[in-house]
Amino acid sequence: MNKRDAAKIPLYISMHENDNVAIIVNDGGLPAGAVFPSGLTLIEAVPQGHKVTLCDLAQGAPIIRYNVTIGTAASAIAKGSWVKEALITMPPARVLTDLPMATHKPAPLPALAGHTFEGFRNADGSVGTRNILAITTTVQCVAGVVEHAVKLIKSELLPHYPNVDDVIGLEHSYGCGVAIDAPDAMIPIRTVRNISLNPNFGGQAMVVSLGCEKLQPARLFPKGSIPIQNGGDPVTVCLQDQQHIGFQSMVDSIMQTAKGQLEKLNLRRRETCPASDLVVGVQCGGSDAFSGVTANPAVGFATDLLVRAGAAVMFSEVTEVRDGIDQLTSRAVSAEVAEAMVREMAWYDNYLKRGGVDRSANTTPGNKAGGLSNIVEKAMGSIVKSGSSPISGVLAPGEKLQQKGLIYAATPASDFICGTLQVAAGMNLHIFTTGRGTPYGLAAVPVIKVATRNELAERWHDLMDLNAGRIASGEASIADIGWELFHLMLSIASGKKTWAEHWKLHNALVLFNPAPVT
Amino acid sequence: MNKRDAAKIPLYISMHENDNVAIIVNDGGLPAGAVFPSGLTLIEAVPQGHKVTLCDLAQGAPIIRYNVTIGTAASAIAKGSWVKEALITMPPARVLTDLPMATHKPAPLPALAGHTFEGFRNADGSVGTRNILAITTTVQCVAGVVEHAVKLIKSELLPHYPNVDDVIGLEHSYGCGVAIDAPDAMIPIRTVRNISLNPNFGGQAMVVSLGCEKLQPARLFPKGSIPIQNGGDPVTVCLQDQQHIGFQSMVDSIMQTAKGQLEKLNLRRRETCPASDLVVGVQCGGSDAFSGVTANPAVGFATDLLVRAGAAVMFSEVTEVRDGIDQLTSRAVSAEVAEAMVREMAWYDNYLKRGGVDRSANTTPGNKAGGLSNIVEKAMGSIVKSGSSPISGVLAPGEKLQQKGLIYAATPASDFICGTLQVAAGMNLHIFTTGRGTPYGLAAVPVIKVATRNELAERWHDLMDLNAGRIASGEASIADIGWELFHLMLSIASGKKTWAEHWKLHNALVLFNPAPVT
Repeated sequence: MNKRDAAKIPLYISMHENDNVAIIVNDGGLPAGAVFPSGLTLIEAVPQGHKVTLCDLAQGAPIIRYNVTIGTAASAIAKGSWVKEALITMPPARVLTDLPMATHKPAPLPALAGHTFEGFRNADGSVGTRNILAITTTVQCVAGVVEHAVKLIKSELLPHYPNVDDVIGLEHSYGCGVAIDAPDAMIPIRTVRNISLNPNFGGQAMVVSLGCEKLQPARLFPKGSIPIQNGGDPVTVCLQDQQHIGFQSMVDSIMQTAKGQLEKLNLRRRETCPASDLVVGVQCGGSDAFSGVTANPAVGFATDLLVRAGAAVMFSEVTEVRDGIDQLTSRAVSAEVAEAMVREMAWYDNYLKRGGVDRSANTTPGNKAGGLSNIVEKAMGSIVKSGSSPISGVLAPGEKLQQKGLIYAATPASDFICGTLQVAAGMNLHIFTTGRGTPYGLAAVPVIKVATRNELAERWHDLMDLNAGRIASGEASIADIGWELFHLMLSIASGKKTWAEHWKLHNALVLFNPAPVT
Repeated sequence: MNKRDAAKIPLYISMHENDNVAIIVNDGGLPAGAVFPSGLTLIEAVPQGHKVTLCDLAQGAPIIRYNVTIGTAASAIAKGSWVKEALITMPPARVLTDLPMATHKPAPLPALAGHTFEGFRNADGSVGTRNILAITTTVQCVAGVVEHAVKLIKSELLPHYPNVDDVIGLEHSYGCGVAIDAPDAMIPIRTVRNISLNPNFGGQAMVVSLGCEKLQPARLFPKGSIPIQNGGDPVTVCLQDQQHIGFQSMVDSIMQTAKGQLEKLNLRRRETCPASDLVVGVQCGGSDAFSGVTANPAVGFATDLLVRAGAAVMFSEVTEVRDGIDQLTSRAVSAEVAEAMVREMAWYDNYLKRGGVDRSANTTPGNKAGGLSNIVEKAMGSIVKSGSSPISGVLAPGEKLQQKGLIYAATPASDFICGTLQVAAGMNLHIFTTGRGTPYGLAAVPVIKVATRNELAERWHDLMDLNAGRIASGEASIADIGWELFHLMLSIASGKKTWAEHWKLHNALVLFNPAPVT
């Protein structure tokens, strides 16, 4: 009997010895009467990824998974039952006072030396994993013209610059028709600024502006805000400039400027860089109950490897870690870092409240169909991507990362907004786990997609870069997949293409703008 | 001396006999000492479009333009001075109580018969001005795959369906990672729904869904919500469906479904339709002081022609009409319509307040450089696009228009958001005036761009569809340009391409989501 066949016998996964529920492993779920090796018998059918009770639960009893109370029993639940969402009363969010602040800071993990990748070193010391000409836009007004020009640059210029991987227009919906002096406007503004400085763009900021927009180039890039590789201000093409007589002359200006940038970018060569030059953003999307059992723990393992190697790793998604705030504040390297975490959580609580909702607005129909009953359970599975290292720092949305180690980058959980903010933070590699499946990609940074289940990995064989489902089927350990992911990261960082890159699939940049539009 | 030469003598434009300021007409502005035909002498240089005082103003005196107090003098201002922004104290917004409700309802204008265009008649009676296959997306997750498929559909399928004008993916940033049950979430949801029903898409809704997203197809299109031409539900491709083995099979499904849609759309033919079948959205963007003097009044004239012909015309942009609320409520056909207008203004006041700003957040650096000192002055110039007809109805953001006549469609003033919401309202033709210049376009609906100044019309000769600057230079009257625009609308509606269509320039759909992201 091979391992895959072995997985056909009734199996559940319990995350902690104190848990009183466990999730069903088997594809297609299990029928009433199924008997597990432990002797537990199902008294009703339970779908894959959904929870079964390991003992009788009285009404009001805590329902425990990941050694955390994910809710209380809304009515008595017999041993061997399907713990449906309606049977779980969700607890209120933990208040943000009296938290353990840097109390259980884990000891630093042993250093991990000798791992390298081939990257593009920038003048400021950062390293690109791709060599891309990015055209920053100050405002959506110019998007049509920039898109037109980018097509021409790709077809007419790019073939002459073989060391440049791609040309992309950094188009977004911000820049005008927005309350640009509102207190929260700094978030989208610094996001656009910092995206332009992503290491994959080689320190060459090229800007296309309209002229009359609110987000003026001088506001986007205040004097001295950019460590431009060649010194000086970013190269800017302004469409309303008097010199532009008609559409074609605007396109010509953009092409001419792009040519100068391409010449400089084309001089760049990959060189051997230590793994510590990686800046990795981890994220999950289209999560199911396996996310927190297979892919996310493997990512957590790889996160620890990266931290040990001296790299920077960001985990994010406020509403998906909010319910684990005490785990996070206690792991902070200092009270200041713990306080910064609380500050970001409190800001987000208030932001949601202003809109009439709370963190429970996070879960999706797909999460629930996949077995995640509520945001507490989802958060416990999400947070494991952060591994077990001490948390060294906190970034507010849109800020640029300036340090190494494990970082909490506070972002919404929306895949596109989180990815966009991690690009702004300076990420040069992105890890994305998915259980339900999404063809997610970014134009700026390679995205390694990790499937949580064998079935998804097999069905989406040319979209998923790594299969963590083998953990559930007993074919590999969390450490096995963690190491595999670590080596895949070094290889993708060195130029190997992800599936999303192979198909040229990418999603839009989506800015986080908590301020009003006008 | 021809008319253009005549414009070289010092000229100002006063909008009303009660005005105590007027704007400078001459290109490049005028120097100190310039003497106008009226005898007024400039005591300092004044840029084009900026205001000159026609008499001495004491500190605190009202500054009057369009017969409206746009502010008070912050200090005494001598006759012949440049009325810089810093000299104007902006008045508070008019409170939304004790307004004149349907008190000055103008008499209906005489009917205008006999004007027609060639359009695509839909089963529900609406008329398309273009015949487009639109692919609705439920969520940003699918955008990369849809974009890939749309390229293939355009290159491989579209050439076989000569009666179909275009294929577009209706991509947006909504659908997941959003608080979909928040009170304000109905706005983006109904916007995506109603965009899919735009008359230019022929009543053929085709949807690409991911599977696990919050905006499920059944939520986007509840049973019976779509008057699908061929009856039944919209045709949906779900990427997570078990049948999709790998990326290529997703693309194949989309192409196969698109083929069926193209076959139906290809049967459509243009037929003669009365001008009353036009649903026109008017908007201004990149405004300057000439917007309210040339292009917007000409649009207002054409608006009246359209209303007389029995068509529907929407004017929008809450913050750009807020300061003229009393003009609008008094023109309403009924107290109910006036109350609906007040309801929308109050909602927006509150929305801005929640974000820590007010309607003064609207004006841009370009507006100010162009002579518009504050939102009151900008609003007075914006509101004239609505012409002089009674206001027949009010639409909340994202709603679909169901009536004829002059409609106030409450939208943000952001060009892209306003355009997107007017597409959702069912607009089949879009008029956009600009003073500073923008290469704005929409993929779904033709956009006629009207320049406010000769200089812009000449410099952007292949982007501007009509030059209203001739009004300022005395070459044409407001009525001349208004009629010209009316005839151009009939011609563009019949299939003639706009400049934006010629260059295939268009901006992104940008949804109005006042609710939080998660």
